[in-house]
Amino acid sequence: MNGLLTDLYELTMAAGFFESGKSDEKATFEVAIRRLPPHRNFVLAAGLPQIVDYLLNLSFTADEIDYLRTLAQFRTVSPAFWAYLQKFRFTGDLFAVPEGTPLFAGEPLLTIRGPIIEAQIPETYLLSAITFQTLIASKAVRSAEASGGRPVVEFGTRRAHTPEAGVLGARASYIGGCAATSNALAGFRYGIPVMGTSAHSWVMSFPCEMEAFRRLQRVLGDSTVQLLDTYDSLEGARHAAKLGKPLSGVRIDSGDFLSLSRQIRAILDEGGLPEAKIMASGDLDEYKIRDLVSAGAPIDMFGLGTQLATSADAPHMSATYKLVELDISGIKRFTAKYSQDKISVPGSKQVFRDVARDVIARSGECGRGEALMKPVILGGRLIEPLPTVEQAREHAAQSVAKLAPALRQLEVGEPWPVIYSRELRELVDRTRHNLVG
Amino acid sequence: MNGLLTDLYELTMAAGFFESGKSDEKATFEVAIRRLPPHRNFVLAAGLPQIVDYLLNLSFTADEIDYLRTLAQFRTVSPAFWAYLQKFRFTGDLFAVPEGTPLFAGEPLLTIRGPIIEAQIPETYLLSAITFQTLIASKAVRSAEASGGRPVVEFGTRRAHTPEAGVLGARASYIGGCAATSNALAGFRYGIPVMGTSAHSWVMSFPCEMEAFRRLQRVLGDSTVQLLDTYDSLEGARHAAKLGKPLSGVRIDSGDFLSLSRQIRAILDEGGLPEAKIMASGDLDEYKIRDLVSAGAPIDMFGLGTQLATSADAPHMSATYKLVELDISGIKRFTAKYSQDKISVPGSKQVFRDVARDVIARSGECGRGEALMKPVILGGRLIEPLPTVEQAREHAAQSVAKLAPALRQLEVGEPWPVIYSRELRELVDRTRHNLVG
Repeated sequence: MNGLLTDLYELTMAAGFFESGKSDEKATFEVAIRRLPPHRNFVLAAGLPQIVDYLLNLSFTADEIDYLRTLAQFRTVSPAFWAYLQKFRFTGDLFAVPEGTPLFAGEPLLTIRGPIIEAQIPETYLLSAITFQTLIASKAVRSAEASGGRPVVEFGTRRAHTPEAGVLGARASYIGGCAATSNALAGFRYGIPVMGTSAHSWVMSFPCEMEAFRRLQRVLGDSTVQLLDTYDSLEGARHAAKLGKPLSGVRIDSGDFLSLSRQIRAILDEGGLPEAKIMASGDLDEYKIRDLVSAGAPIDMFGLGTQLATSADAPHMSATYKLVELDISGIKRFTAKYSQDKISVPGSKQVFRDVARDVIARSGECGRGEALMKPVILGGRLIEPLPTVEQAREHAAQSVAKLAPALRQLEVGEPWPVIYSRELRELVDRTRHNLVG
Repeated sequence: MNGLLTDLYELTMAAGFFESGKSDEKATFEVAIRRLPPHRNFVLAAGLPQIVDYLLNLSFTADEIDYLRTLAQFRTVSPAFWAYLQKFRFTGDLFAVPEGTPLFAGEPLLTIRGPIIEAQIPETYLLSAITFQTLIASKAVRSAEASGGRPVVEFGTRRAHTPEAGVLGARASYIGGCAATSNALAGFRYGIPVMGTSAHSWVMSFPCEMEAFRRLQRVLGDSTVQLLDTYDSLEGARHAAKLGKPLSGVRIDSGDFLSLSRQIRAILDEGGLPEAKIMASGDLDEYKIRDLVSAGAPIDMFGLGTQLATSADAPHMSATYKLVELDISGIKRFTAKYSQDKISVPGSKQVFRDVARDVIARSGECGRGEALMKPVILGGRLIEPLPTVEQAREHAAQSVAKLAPALRQLEVGEPWPVIYSRELRELVDRTRHNLVG
């Protein structure tokens, strides 16, 4: 399954390693955060279960292998390689930072260790899967912080980069602190709370707004959330107030949210509906939420779509997948990249977090504080069930609460201190000396 | 299949329509481009086959229905609705602008017509699927224009928003004019040319670069593309030159591409390798490609990753899914939204494109020039096979070549004239008058 869902060069490299007699060399690759995305003080790790699922099921069908055999790049490859690919399974190890853990520039997210071919092929899939959910969770946590406790609901599937990205984005948003999602499949698949209001088409499909509102109440009862802005939001609010209960609340989707929410609150209160909630949606992001909250807008709940589902102000993240270590018949060799503007750090690593700083150390070192990188898959087997999405969300909330207050603000502040252990620094120097003199 | 891959409110609206006796009302919904994304003079339609596939296979499993029944929002819904959902199939019509067609602000991309529930539920999926590929194709066409005929290869799966988005992004990039993709699954599934070079891990896995380069030649023969920047790009070029043939070319992935490409060209030429191609990749976009091309950089091919795969300067697109028309027992009613800053245009539409302008007309009107919107699905059946990805790419190339030169530049220029036909203007006025007086 999914064998071809990778860059072709992973497969030509695989053939090359095979033909060069390197199949038994054990490689350690690391996914690390090269730089934080703009506007971020940290990222929040997310996406691990999708990676585990991929590694445990990675294989090649006969049709996929037949396709590869038609390509010029594999013309000289021996039949033994195709036989190898047919039986291919991931038999290696995966170490990872748990979902919901804040991370900083330079830190590792995942370590893969196994026969070099098995560790090479997953590069493309792993980078995409882990950085996407991490980006979305990192955006979600900002919105949740900005809303001052008011629920933020993820509404963005229609703007996500494919519908499936919407499902996974909903998952990551929930881990980052969203209260619910509009995505029904995310609810079904991951048990995330789902929420929906009403559509403009609903209102438009009836001869008049009052009729549309009345019929919605009949169907949804006290789950009813009336959408006010099909024609005019204030007129809509008057219609909702006139109809009274059952009513959960109303949603405004356009206009000046501060002024509208105040006027609508007054209309609902005068109509004897002080418990009716006001939800705002439409081109919102964490900055607009913060401004509305600090201006005292009587908005009880925010719906976040486009900006969250695409991480619009930081739609990509600079993460690398680098070979850090080789074990050739028991002899270790450390590797790094030393090109002009992109260097990598050799050796497999651990991160220790205490109250004052993070220390990136060599794996096997002892350190102070919590060790962030944990074993997940050993010898091709999942060692224990992964935390649920609820547990990951809880872990995120607790971990973010422990961060220095400056890191939890929307603006970029003083970075959290991240240093290398002495052993790691020595390894960097020694490797550089060996490789480039 | 995929029944729950939508926003919950599509399903509560479905229940509402059902319970309100509206199941037989025929609705026409339209996907339209509200605004062009920033930095774009047009967008290039892409993603239609994924939408057709969705509509032809849309259904609900028993488990999915059981899940919905647990939700508070459906508490009062009658058993007849669940029986309806169990047999749900899309039996309506789809009209669409062919893949590879340039479109402008205000223009429709798709029209869905069918029983109102069948046309409501697809909203979320359709918007996501069509806008994502359209965004990527629109970015790709800019890169292809900027490269002045030099091949641009899509390398972005690792940065795409999920691996599957990488596959569909590769597809859209190819339609937009990329010459190939690195994504092996996109090659297998859609027949797109695939390309790969070599990985830093390959070089790092050997004791020295020369050895790594030599081994690669042995495996890949004249498909060999040596990656130069693991340690030092110029030193890498000297190693490649020393080894000589077989060699297809070299790739630089960091550093100052203009100066490096000139020096590397000289090294390769002096080494008797004037046919060896130079490829550049790493944080490129259409602007950097244009600058390198106009500075005369001897780069033969560009690899585009992050910026293309995420449409980084415009990661989302403002497209709407609006009810434009209802047919209730043969009586037509036109609908539109008139909220403060988001209006919609009633009635089902056609777009006529001639040499001077586009005219958005009512469907059924005659007009001058080419009618862009074509029937795709009628009565739940695909009327003829869709164009292949090759045909879509060819259509894109021809259509873009016909655009006014100012629209093909990277900078935003004078917009292409898009006007409403007199009949459509009259319908807008009449509908507004009926709805909001």
